Amino acid sequence: DRPFTLISGPCQIESASHADEMAGALHELCSRLGIGLIYKSSFDKANRTSLGAARGIGMQAGLQILSDVRRKFGIPVLTDVHAAEQCRIAAEAVDVLQIPAFLCRQTDLLLAAGESGAAVNVKKGQFLAPWDMANVAAKIASTGNTRILLTERGTSFGYNTLVNDMRALPIMAQTGYPVVFDATHSVQQPGALGGASGGQREFAPVLARAAVAVGVAAVFIETHQDPDHAPSDGPTMIPFRDMQAVLERLLAFDRIAKG
Amino acid sequence: DRPFTLISGPCQIESASHADEMAGALHELCSRLGIGLIYKSSFDKANRTSLGAARGIGMQAGLQILSDVRRKFGIPVLTDVHAAEQCRIAAEAVDVLQIPAFLCRQTDLLLAAGESGAAVNVKKGQFLAPWDMANVAAKIASTGNTRILLTERGTSFGYNTLVNDMRALPIMAQTGYPVVFDATHSVQQPGALGGASGGQREFAPVLARAAVAVGVAAVFIETHQDPDHAPSDGPTMIPFRDMQAVLERLLAFDRIAKG
Amino acid sequence: DRPFTLISGPCQIESASHADEMAGALHELCSRLGIGLIYKSSFDKANRTSLGAARGIGMQAGLQILSDVRRKFGIPVLTDVHAAEQCRIAAEAVDVLQIPAFLCRQTDLLLAAGESGAAVNVKKGQFLAPWDMANVAAKIASTGNTRILLTERGTSFGYNTLVNDMRALPIMAQTGYPVVFDATHSVQQPGALGGASGGQREFAPVLARAAVAVGVAAVFIETHQDPDHAPSDGPTMIPFRDMQAVLERLLAFDRIAKG
Amino acid sequence: DRPFTLISGPCQIESASHADEMAGALHELCSRLGIGLIYKSSFDKANRTSLGAARGIGMQAGLQILSDVRRKFGIPVLTDVHAAEQCRIAAEAVDVLQIPAFLCRQTDLLLAAGESGAAVNVKKGQFLAPWDMANVAAKIASTGNTRILLTERGTSFGYNTLVNDMRALPIMAQTGYPVVFDATHSVQQPGALGGASGGQREFAPVLARAAVAVGVAAVFIETHQDPDHAPSDGPTMIPFRDMQAVLERLLAFDRIAKG
Repeated sequence: DRPFTLISGPCQIESASHADEMAGALHELCSRLGIGLIYKSSFDKANRTSLGAARGIGMQAGLQILSDVRRKFGIPVLTDVHAAEQCRIAAEAVDVLQIPAFLCRQTDLLLAAGESGAAVNVKKGQFLAPWDMANVAAKIASTGNTRILLTERGTSFGYNTLVNDMRALPIMAQTGYPVVFDATHSVQQPGALGGASGGQREFAPVLARAAVAVGVAAVFIETHQDPDHAPSDGPTMIPFRDMQAVLERLLAFDRIAKG
Repeated sequence: DRPFTLISGPCQIESASHADEMAGALHELCSRLGIGLIYKSSFDKANRTSLGAARGIGMQAGLQILSDVRRKFGIPVLTDVHAAEQCRIAAEAVDVLQIPAFLCRQTDLLLAAGESGAAVNVKKGQFLAPWDMANVAAKIASTGNTRILLTERGTSFGYNTLVNDMRALPIMAQTGYPVVFDATHSVQQPGALGGASGGQREFAPVLARAAVAVGVAAVFIETHQDPDHAPSDGPTMIPFRDMQAVLERLLAFDRIAKG
Repeated sequence: DRPFTLISGPCQIESASHADEMAGALHELCSRLGIGLIYKSSFDKANRTSLGAARGIGMQAGLQILSDVRRKFGIPVLTDVHAAEQCRIAAEAVDVLQIPAFLCRQTDLLLAAGESGAAVNVKKGQFLAPWDMANVAAKIASTGNTRILLTERGTSFGYNTLVNDMRALPIMAQTGYPVVFDATHSVQQPGALGGASGGQREFAPVLARAAVAVGVAAVFIETHQDPDHAPSDGPTMIPFRDMQAVLERLLAFDRIAKG
Repeated sequence: DRPFTLISGPCQIESASHADEMAGALHELCSRLGIGLIYKSSFDKANRTSLGAARGIGMQAGLQILSDVRRKFGIPVLTDVHAAEQCRIAAEAVDVLQIPAFLCRQTDLLLAAGESGAAVNVKKGQFLAPWDMANVAAKIASTGNTRILLTERGTSFGYNTLVNDMRALPIMAQTGYPVVFDATHSVQQPGALGGASGGQREFAPVLARAAVAVGVAAVFIETHQDPDHAPSDGPTMIPFRDMQAVLERLLAFDRIAKG
């Protein structure tokens, strides 16, 4: 049982140079800590709370940047897709296609992701019970592609609030697929700022500790050198300067969990 | 304040003759009762719980059938769309494009639906607070198209269960757009049958009564001559033979609500 | 099927003269509308959010006032009890003992209430499924006293929020006992003001309409001539001057529901 | 930062000899592991789901047995109280009075517990937000007794289900009082067996790991040599034979959490 893999990066691809800096810094940090890294960043925020929010750099430019990161640092990269026709194209540039939580039941997207041959990370919908993810994974696996990851990122709990049921981690692991804990989206407060989602950044490391103690294959943490000025997910991203301390602490728990 | 409009039909388009029968019967019933009818049926069930479930007749065949229903009976028709590129095409055949609840935050789909010029009925996501629908409507309205309907169809409440917060109806009505109550999807039990959603058909008329008393512009009720043998949503659809009694009772409440 | 009974009064017993005024006004109103009235008021608020909040006039003084109201106006009176030993004493002064929602599983209190011979109105706990109220009622009925009422007053929905599942009304009615809808406690926002519960008074008539359309035996609405200066439940109580209009509207729905 | 204290014992006091055996075995185990033990057992199950369920041995007999355990093994003992008048009496026999979750808002009980001079462990109500426990603690502290513990034991999540929001642990710790995680009641499924609560015993150690990683002062785990034949809480209690392994694992996480 190896240490958890880190899936990390800034929420959005901001520019080639920003991606280069962030990926370089994360790569250096993870190498030093002896953990695997999958670099994550989005080319399109397709479901922002309100229309005025920044959408992103676009697919073509974004995939080029991710492809460059992959080549330069020799690390796998992950991005999220929102439409079936994006899957084949994105799979040429990235190693892991991510299915957003709201889209985890869209059959065509799941099948196209599976057929792309890339690994597929599906986030559990906020509206879905953990045991229902077996049906989601089966849709992907029907394509013959079983390189599937299942991610916990919170479940609807009243209005504008998510809760993590930590039982979801072993329940989803019963599928046999690796389970990921998404610490930064779990502390989102959907719509809580009216025109945008709020967040409780301070609880992301707390919930990550809990999840790692329960046992996960990977931890998903969005990070940014200056979250409060990031184009999206500022309230939830961890400042990069805190990442080393957060990860070292998680690794200590991970060693016990897998000891 | 006119009586509520009925949005109804079988969940899936099964065949031209089936659509003809159902639409004819609904048209005759609604004419007799003096209420408006929008005929609803889906050409694709794009987010079934599991892969084995019936998907539907397909877009081209389905739109042709809906278009024929519209012409033959002179009634508006509604169908749901799942991808931005379907909107323009579907809008040539139908009067109302419906955005599924899971997709109510997908900006491109909302914009494409708005730009199609058709009326757009958005279902409130099971993961969304009613006040967050103002942001959803604003995305559509940004296209200049304000023929928008907002539908309550239940909110996540623990696992495999939905609840209707009846306060959602007046809260969504504050947007100024007509509010629809979807009685048959509100009684879904998502994933409750393992590979499929369960349902509590017996509560659909109960919840519809409550919603009509609170006040709605339209009621959405899926119906079928034989729900237990329908290709989808059997546990929730109302047998057609019961529709007259259900509607007469709802109309009595509606008259008081709008009196 | 008679019209619903109204259970109403100010949340707390404030003084003999205040009770006299409120009961007189409610009695006159209900007589005029042709509906039964059970006058409700509490001698002790035993579970306030914080310690500083007003507790009430005390049991002895409170029961005397309720007993006087009963005799003067010839109407049944209801009060809530919080400890088993209060039941026998309170039952000498009032017609209906009410079990608070938080206490609906306390066996000794339920048995003592049943043994008192008074009618017993149990509020469904915010933590309880409607079908679990059959076990609660069975505890009371084991004493041989089957004059039981079951009240819906909201279910926990995330933090500081309640939701009414209107299906609870017919589900609880399956016990055979009359079902009450508590409109004013249903719009409580528990703890939402930090040291006190908030409320959404404007939704109380809305939810009452929904409940009456579904079908209930009684409606519970706390009222006060000046809610904003009442010692408790100010954010939820309906101003007395609005009660006639609210009740007339509810009666119109009730006639349809029971027609 | 010392290791967590264990609060443990069988749900109910079954007999003097059973208490002697269980307390002896737990005392020996905790001494060996170097952790503090508070022996917990109830003399009365005052809020069983249904009337037929076993209530317990009674207060007088129960307190005598707990008092004997305390003297014989020199360990603090805890029991729950359900009425204000029990507090003074119970405080003569036990070190910690526990306020059941359903009763955590009952002012008189909290004050009586505070005034007894015993330490007071209050379980957070399933209907309460973690930040609302500050008001609960303040009621007790108003008596001058600040030996208060706050326990997380799950929050209502839909029907017949609880969820642990692990953020509740640091939020409640902001009060300055020690926070306890109750692993076995957190996996209750209230009312899920119709006439009794169900449970998911297998998840109790999982959730305890998560809580210990987040950081707690004490862990509450009910145990029994033969849970499936225990008079209450059988579906949730951990078999005593598994306790050593569970605790050793928790201690390893605790050392990291407090390292």
